[in-house]
Amino acid sequence: MTVGIIGLGLIGGSMAIEIKRKGFAETVLGVENDPVNASAAEKIGLVDQVVSYEECVDRSDLVVIAVPVGAATRLLPDILDRFEKNARGQVVIDVCSTKEQMLRTVHYHPMRRSYVASHPMAGTEYSGPWAAMPGLFDGRACIICNAEESDPKAVSLVEKLYAELNMRTIYMNASNHDVHTAYVSHISHVTSFALALTVLDKEKDEKHIFDLASGGFSSTVRLAKSSADMWVPILTQNRDNVLHVIDTYIEKMQSFRQAIEDYDEDKVRELITDANKIKRIIR
Amino acid sequence: MTVGIIGLGLIGGSMAIEIKRKGFAETVLGVENDPVNASAAEKIGLVDQVVSYEECVDRSDLVVIAVPVGAATRLLPDILDRFEKNARGQVVIDVCSTKEQMLRTVHYHPMRRSYVASHPMAGTEYSGPWAAMPGLFDGRACIICNAEESDPKAVSLVEKLYAELNMRTIYMNASNHDVHTAYVSHISHVTSFALALTVLDKEKDEKHIFDLASGGFSSTVRLAKSSADMWVPILTQNRDNVLHVIDTYIEKMQSFRQAIEDYDEDKVRELITDANKIKRIIR
Repeated sequence: MTVGIIGLGLIGGSMAIEIKRKGFAETVLGVENDPVNASAAEKIGLVDQVVSYEECVDRSDLVVIAVPVGAATRLLPDILDRFEKNARGQVVIDVCSTKEQMLRTVHYHPMRRSYVASHPMAGTEYSGPWAAMPGLFDGRACIICNAEESDPKAVSLVEKLYAELNMRTIYMNASNHDVHTAYVSHISHVTSFALALTVLDKEKDEKHIFDLASGGFSSTVRLAKSSADMWVPILTQNRDNVLHVIDTYIEKMQSFRQAIEDYDEDKVRELITDANKIKRIIR
Repeated sequence: MTVGIIGLGLIGGSMAIEIKRKGFAETVLGVENDPVNASAAEKIGLVDQVVSYEECVDRSDLVVIAVPVGAATRLLPDILDRFEKNARGQVVIDVCSTKEQMLRTVHYHPMRRSYVASHPMAGTEYSGPWAAMPGLFDGRACIICNAEESDPKAVSLVEKLYAELNMRTIYMNASNHDVHTAYVSHISHVTSFALALTVLDKEKDEKHIFDLASGGFSSTVRLAKSSADMWVPILTQNRDNVLHVIDTYIEKMQSFRQAIEDYDEDKVRELITDANKIKRIIR
């Protein structure tokens, strides 16, 4: 089998590493528009060959779209068009963090059933081929959305891929997926970005503020290093859910603010004790 | 020398471990009001002896107040009263995360110069004697506030202690200290608490939301496990600074909210790119 990966960044590159290591495909092709990243990917040996987009789509049995969701949404219909011409049972997946808009885009495409919407929930705050690493997906959750709209053979190929990556697969409709990721992933990024902006603002007057930054600050602000290319389209594509979560979040901040302003120690204690319940959920 | 540590939690316990390990004192006494924690501290061997508060203050050459800042503010004047009676050049430090109120409380105390206000900036989200660990302070910053108000001999003893803990000492006035910790520590805790509350709210309807929680969420919400006993008095004692930072933070969140609501991708990109500048500051 030949797998073609479009976008050799953190996710595409890490997937290439695992696919070769596990022997899931004989040949792994890669597409990378950025010439620096393309030559890095070849140098590191992430894929067997970096080829053009057209060659990749035409030669691959399984195409993986691993570019930011804005670009992915534009590529997907074109890839399905090519599949229609090639007429040889090819399959395409994406790995994006929002799903409703992707699925809407190809809902009436004659080749819709060749597409499996997937979201391997793994990542770091780094990007590009240098960020790719073995074991990135190990033990993490992978969501397949609206599987009933895809060809069962296509779904089963994709399940096999994610099993090789040692991921546990969860099935969900796209609308639930986008609500859940807004809560457990997208809001964390927005709060980290906002924290970084807050502290950087202060730094304009106080050059030495970061001498004091402790481990707690670093872990809370870590996601603020995440790339704009990836996050701009996620936040706008998942707009309604993200706005809803931001509103709830701002309400919680306002409750803290009010309790502190009023020196209401009982209320501050109640809020913190409620927040502590997160202990039963995360390690 | 005899060191007495009041409060054998994360900070007091970890300090006891290092003081014994480095041989900074012949004898380490401990005070712990919670009987479960006291017996744990003796069992683990954190200190040579758990004694009463009075015995600890009277027998120690150096007293370390390692309880939450509300209780510490009440203890400090009493300890200085006892020093006055004992009249043998004893020294007391605290390790609290807010400083202005502590210093105000004893500003006119006749024994003020026996007190050195210090803040070793180290910690984890865990508390109690079981959370104590070797190496907690290693390489971290320690702030000494208003050193000129303390006896130089007392300051030099405290500098020696923190040098043994392998901390780098920074000197600052209390007012600057409290502004800086609001930015690099206190706000991170409030944002984590608010994030935990936001997501826990959603969980009421969606039992399986946390199947999807990724590493990014865990690191952003980690501080929400921090104890109310410690954080209630910090947030209320540092009220004005914390409110100011919360206001700036909410403004940043509102900017994100507005840009996302308007589908203004350029503005979202600008905000994220600005936030990315945190890269040059944290690893």
